[in-house]
Amino acid sequence: MSVEKEKILVQKYGGTSVGTTERIKIVAKRIKEYYEKNFHVIVVVSAMGKSTDALVALSKEISENPSDREMDMLLATGEQVSIALLAMALHEIEVPAVSFTGSQINLLTDGRFSKARIEKIDTNKLLTALEKKMVCIVAGFQGIDLEQNITTLGRGGSDTSAVALAAALEAKECEIYTDVDGVYTADPNKIPAAKKLSKISYDEMLELASLGAGVLHSRAVEFAKKYNVILHVRSSFNFNEGTLVVPEDTDMEKLLVTAVTLKKDEARVTVSDIPDRPGIAADLFAALGDVSINVDMIVQSTGKDNLNTISFTVLKNDVLKAEKVVKELLTSWGAGGASVDKNIAIISAVGVGMKSHVGIAARMFKVLAENGINIEMISTSEIKISCVIRDDKSEEALKLIYSIFGLENA
Amino acid sequence: MSVEKEKILVQKYGGTSVGTTERIKIVAKRIKEYYEKNFHVIVVVSAMGKSTDALVALSKEISENPSDREMDMLLATGEQVSIALLAMALHEIEVPAVSFTGSQINLLTDGRFSKARIEKIDTNKLLTALEKKMVCIVAGFQGIDLEQNITTLGRGGSDTSAVALAAALEAKECEIYTDVDGVYTADPNKIPAAKKLSKISYDEMLELASLGAGVLHSRAVEFAKKYNVILHVRSSFNFNEGTLVVPEDTDMEKLLVTAVTLKKDEARVTVSDIPDRPGIAADLFAALGDVSINVDMIVQSTGKDNLNTISFTVLKNDVLKAEKVVKELLTSWGAGGASVDKNIAIISAVGVGMKSHVGIAARMFKVLAENGINIEMISTSEIKISCVIRDDKSEEALKLIYSIFGLENA
Repeated sequence: MSVEKEKILVQKYGGTSVGTTERIKIVAKRIKEYYEKNFHVIVVVSAMGKSTDALVALSKEISENPSDREMDMLLATGEQVSIALLAMALHEIEVPAVSFTGSQINLLTDGRFSKARIEKIDTNKLLTALEKKMVCIVAGFQGIDLEQNITTLGRGGSDTSAVALAAALEAKECEIYTDVDGVYTADPNKIPAAKKLSKISYDEMLELASLGAGVLHSRAVEFAKKYNVILHVRSSFNFNEGTLVVPEDTDMEKLLVTAVTLKKDEARVTVSDIPDRPGIAADLFAALGDVSINVDMIVQSTGKDNLNTISFTVLKNDVLKAEKVVKELLTSWGAGGASVDKNIAIISAVGVGMKSHVGIAARMFKVLAENGINIEMISTSEIKISCVIRDDKSEEALKLIYSIFGLENA
Repeated sequence: MSVEKEKILVQKYGGTSVGTTERIKIVAKRIKEYYEKNFHVIVVVSAMGKSTDALVALSKEISENPSDREMDMLLATGEQVSIALLAMALHEIEVPAVSFTGSQINLLTDGRFSKARIEKIDTNKLLTALEKKMVCIVAGFQGIDLEQNITTLGRGGSDTSAVALAAALEAKECEIYTDVDGVYTADPNKIPAAKKLSKISYDEMLELASLGAGVLHSRAVEFAKKYNVILHVRSSFNFNEGTLVVPEDTDMEKLLVTAVTLKKDEARVTVSDIPDRPGIAADLFAALGDVSINVDMIVQSTGKDNLNTISFTVLKNDVLKAEKVVKELLTSWGAGGASVDKNIAIISAVGVGMKSHVGIAARMFKVLAENGINIEMISTSEIKISCVIRDDKSEEALKLIYSIFGLENA
């Protein structure tokens, strides 16, 4: 017997979906439904709920700065626990199943511990098990390097594992199970009328992922785009159809804007009166990168007397660290000042329609201006416009932009 | 640079020794002392304290009878957590160290999940790391089979891992760290004057291990005997010399008895009035083996009318299960009766001196008789005598036997 590619289905269940043994049993029942429809099911699971946090806490009791190799060795146990328990739960309801660690399917990565990149997957063991009508359960987030060291893939790693497996197996679809029903036109907690999108393009999903929509990690989306893997973001709590993440099509371009998002977890750092000479910005962002601070928006403007101002946003959690780095640089430059503003929000509109429609940014700026909402920073991509505004105006701004682009009728 | 075999030291730390992160730090400091004396240290660790129990409990929430393969997959994570944390603790005090799972050193076993036997160990990775002056930390209790399935070695598995590594590396010594100072002439909790033995033979240790002295598992001792590995049983809480487990020498034979033990965790099952025909005993013990009940002492006697009585002891925890098996057999035989007695104790004297001295058993029986202690079952080996007596007389019996063999002057 051989395995029909069209019937291979990869399902990824996150930490919440397998957070307790009760939840694991529910996931097992769900898998059984697909198994009985003659799908060849490959399941990728994350560590149970907060178990990764517990392992991190344990390591912190020993070392503030543990070696990346040993941290990966430690964290990889979380997924190994999940796969064993899920296999047991499937056996309990008479579904043949077998679990695999990253090492066992030779999920080869480079040697960058804690943020490894997948290089190759050996599908032989999985195909052999699928041929025997077994469900394969694979530990997400982990792999091994050429020397058989255990590596982990960093944040969102299980999503990436799932997509990589779907690509390697040429699976029909890769389902990403989460605790929401799919991707929405806006956060339903803020805009109750927000609608679930039936499909969205990879690029739009990438922008939304980086805007913190939170359902899917950027790296997994990039991987899916590269290998043309159809993603299906859906809830593990019901059988509703979720959102398909697919290649762009012409239908999508008819919409001006696909979704709007609001991000309130960033703060702005403004570095003013710094010399206008080459290399200043490079020094600044290299120094921030060295201490692993991710910078989101960046705006530079030239002021009087050839002095520049650079503003950038970072996560609120990182802002004190960022300020420290900046002040050290200012000392070394012998010039400039720095200030921090935590009361900002970033509002964004995303849509591939922007490529073919002009004036979208202007409409967004206009509606904000008409309502007395000041725009403090602007950043755009081909399919995204983001504005920094005052935090206390942000919910109002979200509703205005949602409405101006006609998303309530989408 | 090559690795001098004479300087290879294998150390095994059990679950209590690495029960908390504080204890792990203490173990790391201890390892550092040996490392700084230029030993090539290979450390084998068990899972932290009760973590294996916690994993078992988790599996029970899902299945009463989980698959052995998935159980091994689950349990192996316990040791993996320990090795990562211990490596971090060593780094923290500037000792270069690297951790290895059973899979990573290709610790090959047969495919009998939950009770696998070690077949081969690849020492290349370990020797390479030792050459680089690194401490190697190996996950005890686990290996892989030819298909790369994760296997575990059963009870006392980490001891066996340590001995197997010591044998494969031709190490100077294999230190087994535990929470007691070594092997005693009797349980110091019961005989406060009990003395620590400076050395003991493999065979004596085997008898003591099976008598529940608890410091070392029989399989590890058998392995050590087979490969002539010197074991050193000692405490991880101090630097006292412990007990060496070594090949028998003539000195040892001068002593009549090396140690006495008392076991109170067994119960006796008596099967009476059963037909005296071939195969009856075989049927009985095969049926008990089928449900994984370990039988310790067995005594058979022939009564009147060609009817037999067979008495045997099993762990108190297993006695109800054993009784059930027996009653089913009695039904199929259409004859006999069964009774259970939980108020027994097994007292034993062990010593290689028994081989060369006559009358030891007689002295033991005599002192018990003189003190009105009835012997209900007797079982002997070349170097051991065990008697079943009433539970409430057992502490008294222990003291009498300890004294009659002059152990207070040993």
